[in-house]
Amino acid sequence: MEPAIPRVVVLGAGFGGVTFCQSFRPPRAVVYLVDRQNHHLFQPLLYQVATAGLSASEIAQPVRALFHDRPDVHVHLANVEDIRPATREIVVDGRTHSYDYLVFAMGGRTSYFGHPEWEAFAPGLKSLDDAQRIRRELLSAFEHAENTTDEAERRRLMTIVVVGGGPTGVELAGACSELARHVLRRDFKRIDPAQAKVVLIEGSPRLLGQFPEELGQDARETLEKMGVEVRCDTRVKDITRGRVALMEGSSIEAENILWAAGIAASPLTAKLGVPLDRAGRVLVEPDLSIPGHPEVFVIGDAAYLLDKDGQVVPGVSPAAIQGAKHVARIIESELEGAPERPPFDYWDKGSMATIGRSAAVAKLGPLQMTGFLAWTAWLFVHLLFLVGFRNKVAVLWQWFYSYVTYRRGARIITGLKR
Amino acid sequence: MEPAIPRVVVLGAGFGGVTFCQSFRPPRAVVYLVDRQNHHLFQPLLYQVATAGLSASEIAQPVRALFHDRPDVHVHLANVEDIRPATREIVVDGRTHSYDYLVFAMGGRTSYFGHPEWEAFAPGLKSLDDAQRIRRELLSAFEHAENTTDEAERRRLMTIVVVGGGPTGVELAGACSELARHVLRRDFKRIDPAQAKVVLIEGSPRLLGQFPEELGQDARETLEKMGVEVRCDTRVKDITRGRVALMEGSSIEAENILWAAGIAASPLTAKLGVPLDRAGRVLVEPDLSIPGHPEVFVIGDAAYLLDKDGQVVPGVSPAAIQGAKHVARIIESELEGAPERPPFDYWDKGSMATIGRSAAVAKLGPLQMTGFLAWTAWLFVHLLFLVGFRNKVAVLWQWFYSYVTYRRGARIITGLKR
Repeated sequence: MEPAIPRVVVLGAGFGGVTFCQSFRPPRAVVYLVDRQNHHLFQPLLYQVATAGLSASEIAQPVRALFHDRPDVHVHLANVEDIRPATREIVVDGRTHSYDYLVFAMGGRTSYFGHPEWEAFAPGLKSLDDAQRIRRELLSAFEHAENTTDEAERRRLMTIVVVGGGPTGVELAGACSELARHVLRRDFKRIDPAQAKVVLIEGSPRLLGQFPEELGQDARETLEKMGVEVRCDTRVKDITRGRVALMEGSSIEAENILWAAGIAASPLTAKLGVPLDRAGRVLVEPDLSIPGHPEVFVIGDAAYLLDKDGQVVPGVSPAAIQGAKHVARIIESELEGAPERPPFDYWDKGSMATIGRSAAVAKLGPLQMTGFLAWTAWLFVHLLFLVGFRNKVAVLWQWFYSYVTYRRGARIITGLKR
Repeated sequence: MEPAIPRVVVLGAGFGGVTFCQSFRPPRAVVYLVDRQNHHLFQPLLYQVATAGLSASEIAQPVRALFHDRPDVHVHLANVEDIRPATREIVVDGRTHSYDYLVFAMGGRTSYFGHPEWEAFAPGLKSLDDAQRIRRELLSAFEHAENTTDEAERRRLMTIVVVGGGPTGVELAGACSELARHVLRRDFKRIDPAQAKVVLIEGSPRLLGQFPEELGQDARETLEKMGVEVRCDTRVKDITRGRVALMEGSSIEAENILWAAGIAASPLTAKLGVPLDRAGRVLVEPDLSIPGHPEVFVIGDAAYLLDKDGQVVPGVSPAAIQGAKHVARIIESELEGAPERPPFDYWDKGSMATIGRSAAVAKLGPLQMTGFLAWTAWLFVHLLFLVGFRNKVAVLWQWFYSYVTYRRGARIITGLKR
């Protein structure tokens, strides 16, 4: 009798999960890729959807379309409800399935540092629905400002606060400022959108803490030139509807408050029954498996691991992609009967953040870049890695057109409750 | 003292309202264009958004962007609550505004022939939100079919009923069949989407009642070749969740029921205080003004008028566009002190409906076309009239790519409640 075909279950169709499936080519296995969304998202460009630079379908691909030539990969649109490492089972949409290997790649979610009640007033940016909500609320605020006759109310409507000075916060603040100063400027008759106030709040003394100090300083200066008010060493005490209260005592009235300050791992990491860090990340073994269960691996933002220099492997897409390939090799080697479990060796390719039209900061190995050069590098790297050819052409065209004309095609409001 | 600047209020930013504003160039006037959405929609392609052929931003333009070089046109994103012809006032979002001229261009909405309760189970297709809802439900049905083990349930999930055999119903049925038979076919592993059943129901004896009989027959044959079950002379008795009961006694179980059977005018026509037809359309004077109020005009789908051959002017975009230009000329002539009120003369340019990849029917003057030729004409006319250059290029690219590869880029589900 033939032995049963090994079943590999992959949870999450982000960079980690999709790369694993693409890279995993064992002699004999069946792969189940489970996600609650039907699309793989190019998350580094999500802020562009939120600020009306790109439309949703330009940064998303149907997961099924990525694997329609892979008869061994089954895509399953479902909610993961439970994980039972002891019996090697998962529960999705009420049904129990067994696995031989489990790859946990469910990434992160927005974290409000113990204040989940802030979410209603300060949306984070993790999904297409988040991005579309932020776009709707940003554009609607300018529409309401155009209609109001109350000067204080108009100022409040035209103020945007971005909380968090990491790459996402810097990109969002820059994009909001450009949206107001360039894109919307000519559309309105009564208000001048260029008078909009964008405030970027960061708790630590500087922006882009993971980048070299000079790049953080350059980002700050570039943002300030673009009219963004950058406030470092500033902590949030409370957020209520349209109002951010600061630790220092003052507060800011703003119709739009965007949260880019905290990421925590998917709450499902708790189901694995192993030690987690404060952000819910799994303290994985050097080979990315979990303690006591060599058949369960965690990759991407949900894993906590130190690299060979003693640095935490960051929650960025290259780390998820490299981890996925590493785990694919381990499982393949075991299925081929020649098991090998080398430790995961993260190769830091560098990091980049775009600030606006023709401005970015980048660190690529020993190289540091700023300004137009960094922006060109950013553009090139992002286009190169955008999954799917159609999107690349459409996005490039959209960017070129926006760059030349300062107009944006995607500033459509849907889902208005009226 | 200078006389006050004449105020022209335009309600609705569809083809009628937008064309009026573009065409209206008086010596001195201020125009307020009011709509509850921020975008002008290219409605003839809405069915493509519903069936994942195009994304929302490809068929929509921000209304403000259309008029940013027109200092005399003010765009107002607001709900119209009341119209008071007696005092020449409108109420929007709780505030009252006066007008010298009113152009009512609020179009139509889906009508359920006295059964508003059917809307919850059989969505119509009038807005981007409608289209995105239909797309979400169509794609989700196939996902659920892939997951179920119950054969009858799988059949129900893979059945789509389209009610109404006019152009919208024909286009929807054809596009649903193509989506299942070609686009999704390769994506699934357990189900074969090509086994999906698309049923088109029409109450009258034939499809496309407004077209010549041979074209209706050709549309029927083309749809049947594409696997669509066409049922003419078939009336709907009742619609409940997932079930269409027919007058003849039988019923069809279908996860997706799409309503393309009835259009009624905006309910705000009732505020005008003049006689309406059964569908709520205003019985306008020959110059498109309303009885007793020469300063109030109704254009587009909300107007009821006979042309010089005694035919009802149809609710199609060319009629709205021609009516808009006609009213613009009348108001200009009065503001220029040389009033002229010729009757509106509708010029029927013809009509066309696309059935699928390379198939359409078209009537252009005395010419009747079918098949690939009609489809080419359809493509040409629609691209020609798509507002905005960016969209044209993006849509053309998207179509070309879909045509060559049979893949569709926009099949992204957002707004899933999970």
